[in-house]
Amino acid sequence: MDAAPSHETIGRLSRYRRLLTQRLESGSESIYSHELAAVAGVSAAQVRRDMMSVGANGSPISGYDIAALIACVGAELDDPNGARAALVGVGNLGRSILTFFQGRRPNLSIVAAFDAAAAKAGRVICGCRCYLMDDLPKIVAEEKITVGVIAVPQTSAQAVASSLEDAGVRGILNFAPATLQVGPGTFEEDIDMTMALERVAYFAGRNS
Amino acid sequence: MDAAPSHETIGRLSRYRRLLTQRLESGSESIYSHELAAVAGVSAAQVRRDMMSVGANGSPISGYDIAALIACVGAELDDPNGARAALVGVGNLGRSILTFFQGRRPNLSIVAAFDAAAAKAGRVICGCRCYLMDDLPKIVAEEKITVGVIAVPQTSAQAVASSLEDAGVRGILNFAPATLQVGPGTFEEDIDMTMALERVAYFAGRNS
Repeated sequence: MDAAPSHETIGRLSRYRRLLTQRLESGSESIYSHELAAVAGVSAAQVRRDMMSVGANGSPISGYDIAALIACVGAELDDPNGARAALVGVGNLGRSILTFFQGRRPNLSIVAAFDAAAAKAGRVICGCRCYLMDDLPKIVAEEKITVGVIAVPQTSAQAVASSLEDAGVRGILNFAPATLQVGPGTFEEDIDMTMALERVAYFAGRNS
Repeated sequence: MDAAPSHETIGRLSRYRRLLTQRLESGSESIYSHELAAVAGVSAAQVRRDMMSVGANGSPISGYDIAALIACVGAELDDPNGARAALVGVGNLGRSILTFFQGRRPNLSIVAAFDAAAAKAGRVICGCRCYLMDDLPKIVAEEKITVGVIAVPQTSAQAVASSLEDAGVRGILNFAPATLQVGPGTFEEDIDMTMALERVAYFAGRNS
């Protein structure tokens, strides 16, 4: 891509890749833009624009070759050296995040976990080595970590975000119910699972 | 509230409650609208409007009583009979969702899990009884389930959503990377954790 792609474009490419990988695993070899568009919830024209932007070309007759599409999307999305992430907060939420992401993508892995509780330091929890918060700057540098995942209570989330930034992390995925202040060079995204479930429950109650 | 509250309003109320509960647990008894606004990432005027809409009044001198605020928000958000949810898909993601939500809120619980694999039926997994998909309509009715949480692969997500709707579920929280078609009487929300992490990793790589 020439211009820097937007937040939305990167999200779509990530989603396309997962949908395409599932399609490939289920035995298909090619796909039409309108088919991918239907499962991704976007227009076929949008799919074609996005695919052109990563250098993938389809044919009106046979569609796109799925394996080739996945490779083009991967060349755009993935750091060739692999992205290395750190999780902070190894409570119930942190453990479920580790369980979910472990081994999910070869080039994106959570390589270290941090917790304020000294009892967790040195242990391997859900497949990930756990360290004390004090060791964060050292481990982030040694392990070449560029992504931080925050799963601490709201009251400590901002301090953790600042520690991650100070250590050189430039992308933060925040699961804490807090609004974080980060510098202009850091990308930050929030996921609030409790809020989402409460909202669904609320409207389900109204609709039942 | 007189008019039906919006998606955004319900999200904010849910977030306020969690922030307020943490504040109460850390020993505070009262809070000013501007303090709650700062951690929730909204304006103080928005906090005051939202609180007025659930019948909570603060004082310019002493702020809001936190316990009273939590009660007012709960009266708006919570079904007095408690909301009962079903999880569909007891793989890695489903297990992490069960682990995360079990026992989190007294009036919102995942009371049944469903999976296509017969080997899981009858077992208790992460604290939740697991059933076969065929039993979904019967269990949803018996257990008075109004909320469905989808954690199956993309290829089966739409069929699961339709089964949940047919069984009477009116709110769906979807973790599958699929765009679901639901009827106008059903509220549906998506959470795509892999997309979020990939996006953060992408921008972190650009910023590092």
